[in-house]
Amino acid sequence: MTLLVALREWDLAAWVARFRRELPGREIVALGDPFDRRAVEYAVSWKHPPGSLAGLPNLEAIFSLGAGVDHLMGDDRLPDVPVVRVVDPDLTSRMSEYVVLHALKILRQQMRYVRQQQERVWQDDRDQPSAADVRVGVMGLGVLGLDAARKLRVMGFDVAGWSRSPKERLDFPAFSGADGLATFLARTDILICLLPLTPDTRGIIDRKLLGGLARGGRVGGAHLVNAGRGGLQVEADILACLKDGTLASATLDVFETEPLPQASPLWDHPRVTVTPHNAAMSDPVTIARLIAEQIRRVEAGEPFQNVVDRTRGY
Amino acid sequence: MTLLVALREWDLAAWVARFRRELPGREIVALGDPFDRRAVEYAVSWKHPPGSLAGLPNLEAIFSLGAGVDHLMGDDRLPDVPVVRVVDPDLTSRMSEYVVLHALKILRQQMRYVRQQQERVWQDDRDQPSAADVRVGVMGLGVLGLDAARKLRVMGFDVAGWSRSPKERLDFPAFSGADGLATFLARTDILICLLPLTPDTRGIIDRKLLGGLARGGRVGGAHLVNAGRGGLQVEADILACLKDGTLASATLDVFETEPLPQASPLWDHPRVTVTPHNAAMSDPVTIARLIAEQIRRVEAGEPFQNVVDRTRGY
Ligand SMILES: NC(=O)c1ccc[n+]([C@@H]2O[C@H](COP(=O)([O-])OP(=O)(O)OC[C@H]3O[C@@H](n4cnc5c(N)ncnc54)[C@H](OP(=O)(O)O)[C@@H]3O)[C@@H](O)[C@H]2O)c1
Ligand SMILES: NC(=O)c1ccc[n+]([C@@H]2O[C@H](COP(=O)([O-])OP(=O)(O)OC[C@H]3O[C@@H](n4cnc5c(N)ncnc54)[C@H](OP(=O)(O)O)[C@@H]3O)[C@@H](O)[C@H]2O)c1
Repeated sequence: MTLLVALREWDLAAWVARFRRELPGREIVALGDPFDRRAVEYAVSWKHPPGSLAGLPNLEAIFSLGAGVDHLMGDDRLPDVPVVRVVDPDLTSRMSEYVVLHALKILRQQMRYVRQQQERVWQDDRDQPSAADVRVGVMGLGVLGLDAARKLRVMGFDVAGWSRSPKERLDFPAFSGADGLATFLARTDILICLLPLTPDTRGIIDRKLLGGLARGGRVGGAHLVNAGRGGLQVEADILACLKDGTLASATLDVFETEPLPQASPLWDHPRVTVTPHNAAMSDPVTIARLIAEQIRRVEAGEPFQNVVDRTRGY
Repeated sequence: MTLLVALREWDLAAWVARFRRELPGREIVALGDPFDRRAVEYAVSWKHPPGSLAGLPNLEAIFSLGAGVDHLMGDDRLPDVPVVRVVDPDLTSRMSEYVVLHALKILRQQMRYVRQQQERVWQDDRDQPSAADVRVGVMGLGVLGLDAARKLRVMGFDVAGWSRSPKERLDFPAFSGADGLATFLARTDILICLLPLTPDTRGIIDRKLLGGLARGGRVGGAHLVNAGRGGLQVEADILACLKDGTLASATLDVFETEPLPQASPLWDHPRVTVTPHNAAMSDPVTIARLIAEQIRRVEAGEPFQNVVDRTRGY
C-alpha cells in the first residue's frame, strides 16, 4: 500500500519521515513528488490544496492530522471515502489545561493582580467569588467539551453544556439545538467554545449570541473563551461587545485570519487575551502512531474509529 | 455563656455583629470593652495581643478565625484549653483554585504569551510539555495539600507529596520527614508549599531546600509556589536562587512582612508573581457559622472538631 502525505503549513519532510518510521515496509509519498496515483490507498491531510486528493482510484480513507476536519470539508472534490480524524487523549488533556487555566484566570482576576504587582499595590478583594458561584457554559460536548466540563466541575465551577443533539446521563445540566441555546446562554457567566467549524456553526459567536449571556453574575460581566476555530467568531462583534459592556473579556486562541494580522485591534485590547492557536498542540509522533494503528486495525478487518459524518461536517 | 472576640487587623464590630447573629441569646463581647472575665467561656482570635486571653478562669476553648494557628502559638501566656481551627470546604476549594491556576500558568508559560501579545508576536512552542510530563511536589498533605494534590492530578500533573508523618493509602507517591525530603525535592519541577508555620517549618524554604529541586525537567527549571505562610520562606535566598538559576520562577501569596514592603525587590522581579495573601479568602459569615456550630456541638456533649495539637504547633 501507499500512503500519500498531503499538507500545507507543516513540515512535509518530517511528516514523511514519521510515517516511514511508524509504517515500515510501506510506501510513503508526498504530494508534489512523482508517485503512482493508482497505488495510493490512504491519504493524510492538513489543509491539502483543494482537488489534490481527487483522481486516486484506490483511495480507501483520508486521515486528518488534526482533531478538526473543517480544513478538509471546504474541498468540493474531496473523494467519497471515510474521513478519519485524530482523537488523542494527550491533546484532549492539553485543551482542558487551557480551558481550566483561563477559566481560573477570569475567576481569580489574575490580570488585575498582575497589574497591581506592576504598581506595587497590595489590595485583595473581599468579594472574591469561589468557583461554585460562577456559571460556566461549555459549547460543544464532544471529546474536548466533555473533558473540559468534567475538569471545570472538579475545580468547583457550576457547569452547563450545549450540543447539537440532546445528551442523556450527564451529571450536569445540558441543553441542545437552537431551542436550548437561549436558556443555556442566560445562565452562563463564562462561555467556553469548543465547537467544530461547520456550515451551521460558522459565525455563531456574534453580537446576538453574546448579547444573550448572563448579566449580573459574580465575575463582573460575561466572558468568552474560544478555542474551537476562528471561523466560529465574528471579531467585529466581539470588539463591539467589549466596548459596550456586553462582554467583560475575551480569551481567544483562534482567529478569523491566522496568524492574527499585525493590525488587529485584538492585540492590544486591555480585556483581550490572545494566544497563537496553541490551546492543544498535538504531538506529531503520537498522531503518526495513532494513524498507523488505524491502518493496521482496518487491515486486520476491524472498522475505522473516529469517522467523520460528512453530512454534519464534523 | 460569653464569647470574647479578640482580634487585630480585621473589622472588630463586624465580627461581633456576625457572632450575635449566629449565637442569638448569648453574650458577645469584644476585647477592649468592659466585660466580666469570669463569664467568658469561649474566645475567638485573629492575632490577639499576646497575653490578652490570660486570666479567663472559665475559658473552655479558643477558636482561630483562620485555618492557620501560628498567630496564636507565639503567645506564651496562651491558656491551656483546646485551640480549635476553622476547616471550611469553601476555603479549601479556593486554595486549590489558586494552586491549580498557578501550576497551569507555569506549565502553559502564560506570562510568556502575555508578553508576546504585548509585542504582537505570534509564536507557539512546539515543545510544549503536557501536565503528565511535569512533576509537582506538594509540601504539606493536610486539608489543603490533599485537596490541591487531588485536583492537580485530575489536571494530569505527575504529583507527589511530603508531610511530617508517613501517609498510607494515598494514590500518589508520598514522602515524609527529614529522611524523605531530598528524594521528594529531587523529583519536583514545581514545588507547592502548603505547610503550617511552626518552629519546625520556619524558614524551611531556603537556599538548601531550593537547591535540592529537580534539574532538567520540562518547564525550564524549578518553580516555587508558596501559599502557606511567609515565615516559611527566606526571601533573600529565593532572590539569590532566582538570580543564579536555581529557581526559574516564584509565585508568592505570603511574605516575611505583610503587606509586602514597597521596597521589596520581589515586586518587580520579572520571574516573581506577587499576590496579596488572598490565595484562600475565607467567608466571614461561614466562619462565624462554623464556630457557632462547634459551640452547639460541644454543649450537646460532642467533642470539638479540628483541635490543634499544641506540641506540634498545628
Ligand atoms: N485550538 C486548538 O488548539 C484546537 C485543538 C483541537 C481541536 N480544536 C477544535 O475543537 C473542535 C471540537 O473538537 P472535538 O474533538 O470535541 O469534536 P467532537 O467530538 O466532534 O464534538 C463536537 C461537539 O460540538 C457539537 N456541535 C457540532 N455542531 C453543532 C451545532 N451546530 N450546534 C450545537 N452543537 C454542535 C457536537 O454536538 P453533538 O454531541 O450533538 O454531536 C459535539 O458535542 C474541533 O472541531 C476543532 O475545531 C481546536
Ligand atoms: N495563603 C492563604 O490564603 C492561606 C489560607 C489558609 C491557610 N493557609 C496556610 O495553609 C496551612 C496549611 O493548612 P491545612 O489546613 O492544610 O493544615 P493541616 O491540615 O494542619 O495540614 C498541615 C500539613 O503540613 C504537614 N506538616 C506540618 N509540619 C510539618 C513538618 N515539620 N514537616 C513536614 N510536614 C509537616 C502536616 O503533616 P502530617 O500530615 O504528618 O501532620 C500536614 O500534612 C495553614 O497552616 C495556613 O498557614 C494559607
